[in-house]
Amino acid sequence: MIRVTIFNEFLHEKYDGEAKRLYPEGIHAHIQSFLKSEQDLTVYTVTLDDPECGLTEEVLENTDVLLWWGHMGHHLVPDEVVERVWRRVLDGMGFIPLHSGHHSKVFRRLMGTTCNLHWRENDRERIWTVSPGHPIAAGIPAYFELEHEEMYGEPFAIPEPDEVIFLGWFAGGEAFRAGVTFRRENGRIFYFQPGHEDYPSFHNDHVQRIIKNAIRWAYNPVRYRIPCPWAPSPEQGH
Amino acid sequence: MIRVTIFNEFLHEKYDGEAKRLYPEGIHAHIQSFLKSEQDLTVYTVTLDDPECGLTEEVLENTDVLLWWGHMGHHLVPDEVVERVWRRVLDGMGFIPLHSGHHSKVFRRLMGTTCNLHWRENDRERIWTVSPGHPIAAGIPAYFELEHEEMYGEPFAIPEPDEVIFLGWFAGGEAFRAGVTFRRENGRIFYFQPGHEDYPSFHNDHVQRIIKNAIRWAYNPVRYRIPCPWAPSPEQGH
Amino acid sequence: MIRVTIFNEFLHEKYDGEAKRLYPEGIHAHIQSFLKSEQDLTVYTVTLDDPECGLTEEVLENTDVLLWWGHMGHHLVPDEVVERVWRRVLDGMGFIPLHSGHHSKVFRRLMGTTCNLHWRENDRERIWTVSPGHPIAAGIPAYFELEHEEMYGEPFAIPEPDEVIFLGWFAGGEAFRAGVTFRRENGRIFYFQPGHEDYPSFHNDHVQRIIKNAIRWAYNPVRYRIPCPWAPSPEQGH
Amino acid sequence: MIRVTIFNEFLHEKYDGEAKRLYPEGIHAHIQSFLKSEQDLTVYTVTLDDPECGLTEEVLENTDVLLWWGHMGHHLVPDEVVERVWRRVLDGMGFIPLHSGHHSKVFRRLMGTTCNLHWRENDRERIWTVSPGHPIAAGIPAYFELEHEEMYGEPFAIPEPDEVIFLGWFAGGEAFRAGVTFRRENGRIFYFQPGHEDYPSFHNDHVQRIIKNAIRWAYNPVRYRIPCPWAPSPEQGH
Repeated sequence: MIRVTIFNEFLHEKYDGEAKRLYPEGIHAHIQSFLKSEQDLTVYTVTLDDPECGLTEEVLENTDVLLWWGHMGHHLVPDEVVERVWRRVLDGMGFIPLHSGHHSKVFRRLMGTTCNLHWRENDRERIWTVSPGHPIAAGIPAYFELEHEEMYGEPFAIPEPDEVIFLGWFAGGEAFRAGVTFRRENGRIFYFQPGHEDYPSFHNDHVQRIIKNAIRWAYNPVRYRIPCPWAPSPEQGH
Repeated sequence: MIRVTIFNEFLHEKYDGEAKRLYPEGIHAHIQSFLKSEQDLTVYTVTLDDPECGLTEEVLENTDVLLWWGHMGHHLVPDEVVERVWRRVLDGMGFIPLHSGHHSKVFRRLMGTTCNLHWRENDRERIWTVSPGHPIAAGIPAYFELEHEEMYGEPFAIPEPDEVIFLGWFAGGEAFRAGVTFRRENGRIFYFQPGHEDYPSFHNDHVQRIIKNAIRWAYNPVRYRIPCPWAPSPEQGH
Repeated sequence: MIRVTIFNEFLHEKYDGEAKRLYPEGIHAHIQSFLKSEQDLTVYTVTLDDPECGLTEEVLENTDVLLWWGHMGHHLVPDEVVERVWRRVLDGMGFIPLHSGHHSKVFRRLMGTTCNLHWRENDRERIWTVSPGHPIAAGIPAYFELEHEEMYGEPFAIPEPDEVIFLGWFAGGEAFRAGVTFRRENGRIFYFQPGHEDYPSFHNDHVQRIIKNAIRWAYNPVRYRIPCPWAPSPEQGH
Repeated sequence: MIRVTIFNEFLHEKYDGEAKRLYPEGIHAHIQSFLKSEQDLTVYTVTLDDPECGLTEEVLENTDVLLWWGHMGHHLVPDEVVERVWRRVLDGMGFIPLHSGHHSKVFRRLMGTTCNLHWRENDRERIWTVSPGHPIAAGIPAYFELEHEEMYGEPFAIPEPDEVIFLGWFAGGEAFRAGVTFRRENGRIFYFQPGHEDYPSFHNDHVQRIIKNAIRWAYNPVRYRIPCPWAPSPEQGH
């Protein structure tokens, strides 16, 4: 059984018209609902409304894969929560930032770069499968379309990914590395670009399949912390 | 002084209407002409018409960077020439296959994969710079357009590149890793997708600048052959 | 059920004193014997004595992961068998070359480099785990020792690996990238350095565990061939 | 002209017997002295004693490549200095952390991992060249020895490097990725393991040559900052 936790800042869906209409109980609740049918997953959700963002030591101890959706509230995640999640990823927890999660503090800390990119609202996107035999692409066709998505454009300020799984093509004229993997110490990371709050991307069958695939790919049953063999000051190592 | 050799199969330009009109003396001669102004380059050209494709041991000894344009005549390059070029790349000669050179025997041998891809004639392409600080991208804007190019589409059956420098966007709906680097032993390789024989891509200033940049990037003054310390059978090692 | 095929050239064990004593029925039979206890594996063996090295289309169709041990008989594997195995790896068959298999025609074709290295007989080796959370390292301690192994030394003429899982340390003074992974199209490849015919490395518990782990890691249930959409000449694509 | 700045915490050499004897004016002054003969380099030094560690905006503006030596004083480098150096590396300044600089705040921030490792004082080290054609290895033999160095051992908690240039072998039984490169946005990074304060490694000709080579390799004449096109909060982007 893979224990999945979904973090969602849960801000837009409370106030915005479209986000509220598409995800009335929040993006987290929606993702949880389409994961319900998967027999090998148990899914738990947390938001900014929970103390410590719901990401206590105990919750992280019991999480195998963490999904992350955030946007306007990145700065509301306290630094000690970021530190805790970062360490847990390095120990072997899978981490899947979605869409505007590219700018989350945790992802930026793991990458060591700004993770900046370009953007424009509302475009038609076509997702191309670059690595058709990869487990994250299992069951995904050569390409599929999202009638509405937010354009994310290059340069995307990330380290060279281990694998580029998907490329995004936008009708307005841009191309983007839309699905990329990284390994950091014992943790596996998959960033996926679709998932703007005002568009129904998380209702799309292929997007849902990719998220399910990515959870299983990111799951690492081995937990391991590379030690720091001298007495560490708070600034050093684990 | 960097000694550049351009191999061009020189078939289309002899017979086809458009290729002949655009490159009346051959793609090789055209590339040579726009490299002429570069003070640090000496440029030599060879074609399928030359004995051993012009790629004798002596020519390769005196080549620092080899450009390669081929398409319908890949199978006309003898295997012993392929072997010779492959070894010279591993020793430190830069190698820059252009456009349909993705299916050249040398590139496929260096990659160890099929280098297959999808294609469609005549589309509008926009080239995006993914790695704006890379020497190959020096002086290249965020993007530029080629009114006519052959669409090359994913999946592109190459090993994960060391660096993705450019992405191609096609008006017809595809995205492609259009400029990618690889290191193989002591040799540096840059594959660049534009350059169909029927379109004026090699007349484009940005394409010309990318080729000039790539030559300087691929140039490795150090020559080194990793030895095979047991008496090699012809099948083994160098 | 993962269908494993072990190819062994089966030459040394027929004639040499030590190899014969350690592996009286051949290295292939020995590896098969320690895989027998694994409930999720079925194991088949082939050697140079079989027609077409036992690696017919039908056998490869029914193989998920291929192990390869060869040394003095690399040149006895016909090129059409090499071609067939190479294509099947690209389609998704796992490939695990052991020890002197670094110079097998299949591995060299997949790498696109010479795969040369340095060597010296009979040294004490210590294997260090560089990537302790990797599935191939599951259950392997921080390091373990092989009282006798053949020293393999750098430079090892391979492309930069996707992952370095193990480093080898030799009492005589060398260090080596002893366990490395590569992805080539849909196939996963793990090269592992220990396994000289005159030493009991394949009797070592840790070596056996690494081979079992690697088989499961290399297994890819998805089969995929990236097509070549124009009518291929025999020289082109698949 | 490449403008080099050397940061040294300058603590051990003031108090410790051996460090003081080997580097009486500080490791920074010693490195500066052996770089003096290089016509293409201008070298400036800063230490913890300088306001803001000497790494003001103005100094960084005028630095092309930054060398970093630190150990017991990592926590004395203020976070705003770390932030400033980190941004400058991403914009294109080369960064060369030496020895215990693996645990500097800047390197850890760039890597996104703990950069933990194992260690033991005083061992004999042999450095092997893994990538003999790489510019950083120019003029370096197949291997060289340091009679005394601090053992650094695997696992080394870094992301998979772009290139492994050197492996370290220790007489006591360990192997280590002793020279590794990374690219982060526009900045080139080379980590090199030798250089303990109590041993004369920086007096070794090969170590000096490697540092000179690395400076020229890390120098990137192109400066580029990938922008953050929305109005950034202090927590976001550049």
